[in-house]
Amino acid sequence: MDQSEKLIINLCPTGMVPRKKDNPFLPISPKEIAADVRRCYELGVSMVHLHARDQQEDPTWSPDRFEEIIAEIKAISRQLIIVVTTSGRNWPELEKRSAAFEIKGANRPDMASLTLGSMNFPSQASINPPQIIQGLAKKMQENSILPELEVFEVGMINYAHFLIRKGLLQPPYYFNLLLGALGTMNLNAANIGLMINSLPPNAIWALAGIGRFQTAANTMAIALGGHVRVGLEDNPYFDWNDRSHASNPRLVERVLRISRELGREPASPEDARKIIGL
Amino acid sequence: MDQSEKLIINLCPTGMVPRKKDNPFLPISPKEIAADVRRCYELGVSMVHLHARDQQEDPTWSPDRFEEIIAEIKAISRQLIIVVTTSGRNWPELEKRSAAFEIKGANRPDMASLTLGSMNFPSQASINPPQIIQGLAKKMQENSILPELEVFEVGMINYAHFLIRKGLLQPPYYFNLLLGALGTMNLNAANIGLMINSLPPNAIWALAGIGRFQTAANTMAIALGGHVRVGLEDNPYFDWNDRSHASNPRLVERVLRISRELGREPASPEDARKIIGL
Repeated sequence: MDQSEKLIINLCPTGMVPRKKDNPFLPISPKEIAADVRRCYELGVSMVHLHARDQQEDPTWSPDRFEEIIAEIKAISRQLIIVVTTSGRNWPELEKRSAAFEIKGANRPDMASLTLGSMNFPSQASINPPQIIQGLAKKMQENSILPELEVFEVGMINYAHFLIRKGLLQPPYYFNLLLGALGTMNLNAANIGLMINSLPPNAIWALAGIGRFQTAANTMAIALGGHVRVGLEDNPYFDWNDRSHASNPRLVERVLRISRELGREPASPEDARKIIGL
Repeated sequence: MDQSEKLIINLCPTGMVPRKKDNPFLPISPKEIAADVRRCYELGVSMVHLHARDQQEDPTWSPDRFEEIIAEIKAISRQLIIVVTTSGRNWPELEKRSAAFEIKGANRPDMASLTLGSMNFPSQASINPPQIIQGLAKKMQENSILPELEVFEVGMINYAHFLIRKGLLQPPYYFNLLLGALGTMNLNAANIGLMINSLPPNAIWALAGIGRFQTAANTMAIALGGHVRVGLEDNPYFDWNDRSHASNPRLVERVLRISRELGREPASPEDARKIIGL
């Protein structure tokens, strides 16, 4: 535990699932996403986890759409760490899931999500077969993209160890431990402890909590010396008692208030690149 | 995990060890302790864990001195939960350690500490032989005093199960899990998880962190739906980087700011009595 380390805040502003009708503050278009990223960057966000949507708000794998978003963000900061999703929720093919890796030049992504197993979300399966995981890992290596290792179960960390032995993952390791989704590990101290103790040496880790568990997961990470992922992708409500809508900046502001009570300042993008080893 | 439950804040204002020369805000006399308790009660403290000191600031087991302190506190609130220490740090005898149990009438204590094993503090052993633990538990039963079950190691929780089987502990069980002392369990998620999972059913639990771990332990408890113990007994500094002195009210205020970010309001003494089952 190192509480004195600066806090890397990974913003997940949009995701695959929520719609504007669910939350009017949800950013959909590249300009809307960039507007939220700008405010959150000014607050202390150093990393953004991006999903692209089309004009109908539907998820899209179009690398052009990803590049539009990234170009808008690069105009805010060239150092903000850019993560693109490889979600297979709506299209299983490796080529579509990794299409954004083809973006080259100034708008290339730094990182991409890599979910280390198959599992259930509350209303559907999330299917990541071994061949797809390994294929994505290989393509990331070829394109010098660092994985955001997404973990919902302890066995998925075990799979990271297997990929390390196979040479498909090299340090640095950035793990995002997601807890509280119905169907996978719930948020409690024992589960978090087991996950942390299962990580490879020198891993960087963040906690994300799904839905009502977002703030508690973020808070635990702050107290334990880890990092956080926060945003509307994982949690639509600011207050689960009155179901008031969250916005990305308000969620980030709350994380920062808690973090500062524990003496942890946010990492700048430059700090975050140093901590992760990017 | 029930984050919606109100937070019981157990204030430990003085302890056995710190002196005014270490921290000028440390309350020593009954009037000083009562002044801190009053401010902290107004903020949201519902329970106070008391140690008595004599005119030279030395710890004393004198029931008269304890009664002086309690009388001052009763003038603030008759409902605040009063806990007296049974620490054996400076005197091993059962009679001295339990002397405050003899206070009867309006100033009788509601609870008393019961450390469930022997262990090391950073600079000395803390010796609580089985006969003393059982003797204290028996005297508490005879005097209708509820133990604050102090636990520094998982095996101490196992000893609580033994005392339950022996009929020396009855519900409700209020456990104070103390982490981060050099010599006993350190603060991390796995240790907290193991402790929580080892508790008897329906136990109420709080987290206390020693020294630099106080705020992190309190924060973890808030996020996990537990309760907290906070105060100068466990932690003299507000900020461990600049070693600025804490005061009891400032420590309580910080806990409350964090707690409110997670949607938990402080329990009143009446709420706390209901939650614990006093």
